Amino acid sequence: MSKRIKVKALLESTQTNIEVTVMGWVRTFRNNQFIALNDGSTNSNIQIVVDFENTDPTLLRRITTGAALSVTGTLVESLGKGQKFDIKATAIEVLGDSDPEKYPLQPKKHSLEFLREIAHLRFRTNTFGAIFRVRNSLAFAVHKFFQERSFVYLHTPVITASDAEGAGEAFKVTNLDLDRLPRTDDGQIDYKQDFFGKATNLTVSGQLEGELGAMALSDIYTFGPTFRAENSNTTRHLAEFWMIEPEMAFYDLEDNMDLAEALLKYTISYALEHNAEDIEFLTQRLADEDKQKPQNERSEMSLLEKLQFCLDNDFQRLTYTEAIDILKDSTPNKKKKFQYLIEEWGADLQSEHERYLVEKHFKKPVILTDYPKEIKAFYMRQNDDGKTVRAMDILFPGIGEIVGGSQREERLEKLEQRMGEMGIPTEELWWYLDTRRFGACPHAGFGLGFERLVLFVTGMGNIRDVIPFPRFPKNAEF
Amino acid sequence: MSKRIKVKALLESTQTNIEVTVMGWVRTFRNNQFIALNDGSTNSNIQIVVDFENTDPTLLRRITTGAALSVTGTLVESLGKGQKFDIKATAIEVLGDSDPEKYPLQPKKHSLEFLREIAHLRFRTNTFGAIFRVRNSLAFAVHKFFQERSFVYLHTPVITASDAEGAGEAFKVTNLDLDRLPRTDDGQIDYKQDFFGKATNLTVSGQLEGELGAMALSDIYTFGPTFRAENSNTTRHLAEFWMIEPEMAFYDLEDNMDLAEALLKYTISYALEHNAEDIEFLTQRLADEDKQKPQNERSEMSLLEKLQFCLDNDFQRLTYTEAIDILKDSTPNKKKKFQYLIEEWGADLQSEHERYLVEKHFKKPVILTDYPKEIKAFYMRQNDDGKTVRAMDILFPGIGEIVGGSQREERLEKLEQRMGEMGIPTEELWWYLDTRRFGACPHAGFGLGFERLVLFVTGMGNIRDVIPFPRFPKNAEF
Repeated sequence: MSKRIKVKALLESTQTNIEVTVMGWVRTFRNNQFIALNDGSTNSNIQIVVDFENTDPTLLRRITTGAALSVTGTLVESLGKGQKFDIKATAIEVLGDSDPEKYPLQPKKHSLEFLREIAHLRFRTNTFGAIFRVRNSLAFAVHKFFQERSFVYLHTPVITASDAEGAGEAFKVTNLDLDRLPRTDDGQIDYKQDFFGKATNLTVSGQLEGELGAMALSDIYTFGPTFRAENSNTTRHLAEFWMIEPEMAFYDLEDNMDLAEALLKYTISYALEHNAEDIEFLTQRLADEDKQKPQNERSEMSLLEKLQFCLDNDFQRLTYTEAIDILKDSTPNKKKKFQYLIEEWGADLQSEHERYLVEKHFKKPVILTDYPKEIKAFYMRQNDDGKTVRAMDILFPGIGEIVGGSQREERLEKLEQRMGEMGIPTEELWWYLDTRRFGACPHAGFGLGFERLVLFVTGMGNIRDVIPFPRFPKNAEF
Repeated sequence: MSKRIKVKALLESTQTNIEVTVMGWVRTFRNNQFIALNDGSTNSNIQIVVDFENTDPTLLRRITTGAALSVTGTLVESLGKGQKFDIKATAIEVLGDSDPEKYPLQPKKHSLEFLREIAHLRFRTNTFGAIFRVRNSLAFAVHKFFQERSFVYLHTPVITASDAEGAGEAFKVTNLDLDRLPRTDDGQIDYKQDFFGKATNLTVSGQLEGELGAMALSDIYTFGPTFRAENSNTTRHLAEFWMIEPEMAFYDLEDNMDLAEALLKYTISYALEHNAEDIEFLTQRLADEDKQKPQNERSEMSLLEKLQFCLDNDFQRLTYTEAIDILKDSTPNKKKKFQYLIEEWGADLQSEHERYLVEKHFKKPVILTDYPKEIKAFYMRQNDDGKTVRAMDILFPGIGEIVGGSQREERLEKLEQRMGEMGIPTEELWWYLDTRRFGACPHAGFGLGFERLVLFVTGMGNIRDVIPFPRFPKNAEF
């Protein structure tokens, strides 16, 4: 099979009148003469010109949407519009048929909802081909960014016995026979008999383990699946999603913000460079979708413009306290247009407030810092004011929170005190606290929700469309 | 903190007599004068020369093994042996103390078993620093290899409702309250009330979903965690491990073998190039360990030689049938030294047989193909002989099976027939079978156990030492 050339490489050919072999799937077959063949290497199809007068009609009938073909022929400059090359076929082999009566993907526009039901086939559409090639580039860009900065990629555990952060939203993992749960003398489930000898669950974050690595290797990052058993049926949440969590020794919050902003810009820029065609397609897709909306709901910028704008501008950095002042004074707050009115310092910001700051007030990505400690996690470094912590959230237009991070509390006493206040068991996290006992240092880190980045760069509206097989309440198909 | 320079970058400096700031952890402090400081960026320490006569004795007492320091000083050529540069300290700040009475890592050799108990701190040793930097390079090399070949990195689901491959070895995932399991009218556990509306478990392989991607994008790979609830307490098994699973449309078994061999060589070669110092350290470590063994158990080759040998030689390719003939005729079989004697065709190969072929007979990596269908999975392409399938296993010295793969059965009828014979429910895998219904094509793929690759390249003997926080029976600490 190795003489095959992929369509992407073919379209970059500098020669014509050479013999080539391509393999892929039929997108359309027009006039018994023109096959649009796609092999997933690019959004572009290669047009195969069939000498239909000298081709067996039985074969012609088998060239249907979805069929897999191997085509050998001569590469020629195309006479048609919209493509550079054609292949004049000299030999066509049908590798796999596709019954047009039964094939779910017809050469027409299908709704995203319908395509979600056939997620095993949606890779074969232009939209999802583009999305998953962009997702691929973003993932590789993440690795490349950190490797260029000598970070160590660390695989933190997926199954964990620690639920310090889970707050009851962690999935249970067990090997016990649920029909015959072993019990201790006092009637409790006997997890000693479970595979790991204790109750375990799926990780909600690799951060705590990541910090352990950073306290020796200086700079690490994780990139792995994380899980929330949260019953949210929104366009922004998944039960299983991928997170990138860098942790850096000897970093303060400024360093942390600089790194996160650089990472976002690097990955977006990498996708723009390597997936120009896909992003162009997705930009057009979004523009078409926008045309269906009333004038006042349409985007001011195209997808491509939005991505470029993000690269060209410094993210706006301000404190939570400053943000509250802006929000209090804002028109929607005064006119009571917000669902949750901002009345006093300490309020948790809702999506509507984040969107106002990003999309209306600053009109660019925003980094909010120094949140009230009450609405943030136990491990964030406490400020001297006794009220706030060195947290940072990065808010993106149309997405909301894309990054959440902080400088970590490296002072043992302060950390233990806060854990006490928040009811986090210190014994369970003895290993975490050890890093504060032995050679503690200022350090920081953040989490980037990978699917939210993919959402932003592809311009898609639903997070279920940017991961191959989404997991959400009542759905674990495929 | 941003003026800090990492030790690795510092050691590559072309200038001296410049002022630098380094931050890291004390490995040793000799004669109140020489600090060996390590920041994890390299195995090498930077030596800090302390002007002890003009330094506050209180500060000197706080410079203990494990303490975190920030040191500013002048970079000078070292007068001592074994290092290129020293830093003549002008300012030392203790960022975090480390009580020498309590710090578990003393400046002496600890056993690997002991270090496994304190896996949160073992990153701070030379051995584990080297292992996790090598692991990082291997992971990135995997991505780089596939990206250079235009493969799409696909995140297949971790939580799945399909247990076709699990054979009862999959961990259950649930959100039900185990103390109050909901029941249906006939007394069964009512999984409809579970988070996903059905029984789910942790994936044992992303292959089946990977094939769905390949049937549209041509070439994909996964790189993610996989799970086995197998009660094996060996040095080769983990309950949670990382797998790389490429799937390629329009590939036959030859193409598949070529790709796997190229991948292994590429990653090993990348690590040799980028982690020369770490691999040198690990080579020495293994040589020292070997010296403890009786002469006849020592390795013929050093770690470095073994890696180089692997790059320089074609892997030996032969069929299972040929291997059985060799094994039948082998001295250990005739002298009944094998625990499992090879008597007839069809026998499953044990570790001792694999090792004989690789380490004694061919003395290089071996690719075995065309195994009896009875000992292989349902999805492997059936050969015309009716007895064998187009499987391939790659066997490595000291490791055994490092890659398992096959050409996949693309013929719907043959596949359904085999599933029937093996009792695999076809309804549950409707989506998998759809790829054989619509545009099927010859395709192939394999799985590479990432930790086994890391084992091989680091020369470590126990798989629990090459993943940050190993999961195995009765252990899910950290």
